[in-house]
Amino acid sequence: MSELNTLTNFIKKDFNKSLKSFPFPREPKYLYEPIKYALNVSGKRIRPILLHLYGKELNADPNDLMKLSLSIELLHCFTLVHDDIMDSDNLRRGVPTVHKEFDISSAILAGDGIFTIGQLVLTELNNPNIYKLFNHTVLDICEGQGFDKQFEELDNITMEDYINMVEKKTGALIGACLSLPAALAGKNDKEINKVKSIGHKIGIAFQIQDDLLEIFSEEKNMGKSLGSDILYNKKTAIAIEANKNFHNEWNDLINKFDGKSIENIRSFLIKNKIKDKIDKLVEKYFYLSFKEMEKIGLKRDCSLYKFIKKIQGRHS
Amino acid sequence: MSELNTLTNFIKKDFNKSLKSFPFPREPKYLYEPIKYALNVSGKRIRPILLHLYGKELNADPNDLMKLSLSIELLHCFTLVHDDIMDSDNLRRGVPTVHKEFDISSAILAGDGIFTIGQLVLTELNNPNIYKLFNHTVLDICEGQGFDKQFEELDNITMEDYINMVEKKTGALIGACLSLPAALAGKNDKEINKVKSIGHKIGIAFQIQDDLLEIFSEEKNMGKSLGSDILYNKKTAIAIEANKNFHNEWNDLINKFDGKSIENIRSFLIKNKIKDKIDKLVEKYFYLSFKEMEKIGLKRDCSLYKFIKKIQGRHS
Repeated sequence: MSELNTLTNFIKKDFNKSLKSFPFPREPKYLYEPIKYALNVSGKRIRPILLHLYGKELNADPNDLMKLSLSIELLHCFTLVHDDIMDSDNLRRGVPTVHKEFDISSAILAGDGIFTIGQLVLTELNNPNIYKLFNHTVLDICEGQGFDKQFEELDNITMEDYINMVEKKTGALIGACLSLPAALAGKNDKEINKVKSIGHKIGIAFQIQDDLLEIFSEEKNMGKSLGSDILYNKKTAIAIEANKNFHNEWNDLINKFDGKSIENIRSFLIKNKIKDKIDKLVEKYFYLSFKEMEKIGLKRDCSLYKFIKKIQGRHS
Repeated sequence: MSELNTLTNFIKKDFNKSLKSFPFPREPKYLYEPIKYALNVSGKRIRPILLHLYGKELNADPNDLMKLSLSIELLHCFTLVHDDIMDSDNLRRGVPTVHKEFDISSAILAGDGIFTIGQLVLTELNNPNIYKLFNHTVLDICEGQGFDKQFEELDNITMEDYINMVEKKTGALIGACLSLPAALAGKNDKEINKVKSIGHKIGIAFQIQDDLLEIFSEEKNMGKSLGSDILYNKKTAIAIEANKNFHNEWNDLINKFDGKSIENIRSFLIKNKIKDKIDKLVEKYFYLSFKEMEKIGLKRDCSLYKFIKKIQGRHS
């Protein structure tokens, strides 16, 4: 195993151990059972890993970094639980979403509880600046989700609108994975804003990659059925690009789509060079993030840099 | 107008002005329109008034108190928006609830946003202790709502279970109206716990009063139709007491209840002295809160004491 893999596996294991040993009360079951269910679904832990890797560059205290990464992952989990209700998603990482396994009321309350526990973990650090950054991040995510829902009803979304939306919905949280350790290490506002901006770029690239994987990956890797974005006419980068230049053909195609014949969609996107264009957009944002990383002195051989390179090449 | 009324009206006006001038962004409308709608429904502002009156006793800075009271009212509003979804309530203070005026997804997101803005207002105080107290309060409220939902499915809830539940669901927030100004004034943990306990007692009394008003008040005063607790078989103090001693009769009565003939319910509760018993329970908790207030040196002629006396005698 490469040195990077050893390190990220160690972080992931350590993080999962911390999350698992979290002292949740037993009662009320109505609140804590869905919370435990939601947290039990082990994700890739990309955000905690990013946070620890950057914190390591700053020589930050590992225990403090663990608290930051727990609060970030709890925040992430809370937004997924609520978003899944809003987007009527039934499956997440191969298992029923919280509102499907329990019900909508339980899932609303579980999300609220997870969010609050994330805030409580943060209070242990006694750092008002971290608290501010964290909650500004949450408001950005809420705004991102607001734009995303708003776009569902609109037919004239530009790529710029879309990128602004994902910068908030996905970029803000990845930005926080870098800005929180920076605040912990006592960096000033200007320095914090620089790393936040790097996170935003990575987040944009990551989300557009996700849009592509939703159509071009293997179903078993994604833990959900492919093509649901198309089925629900979601305004992804792909849909926006296809709709702009191939309006009639694209709309014919998605109206005919039954959720199964993903091959037709794939060949349409390849033939018309839409996949190429969106691939390039992903590369652009990764490129920008690497440029900004180098500017603040993060070397190509540091584990953070290498980990983002690995994300860039992911297939699921 | 009495001196107390002049003071509480002033606080209410000042508070509403602060809330109204809150700089909400215009976009995304999907997020901010429901938030503005939810906050536009002017409540009685009991919690901000309590907080300001106690803060005045402590000679706390009025601007800081305003921030605390805004965060408390935003927290209150967030829980109402989400609870209304969970409880399928269609009307609040005489107007459609957020999920009825918009939809469930908008209301979930609006609640999340309101909660986050409440946290952000708090960050302006740079006081980690306040942040901790605030979030422990939120988790208590979530647990209270968890117990409340859990009780819906159970038929053997005791009065003790019920009081534990409302202590969290309603008491915690009123506790925070006293503990937050105490923390602002630099009181120690022991002193903070004492005022928190007073707030819990007031909260319990207040909630049981609400259960009574839901059946015995005038409809126009409540801004919603009466008897909905009975219609939905909610485990209120009244229902628990009636079910305990008059199981069959009470269940006959509520099974027959069509949401209109509230008079039958009223006379049953009066005739069987259930109303008397619950009235006494309310008095007990107000009495305990007054005793504890006197113990920490809050005099009977201070405006906080008088205001709680006024709550004790409310009819809506």
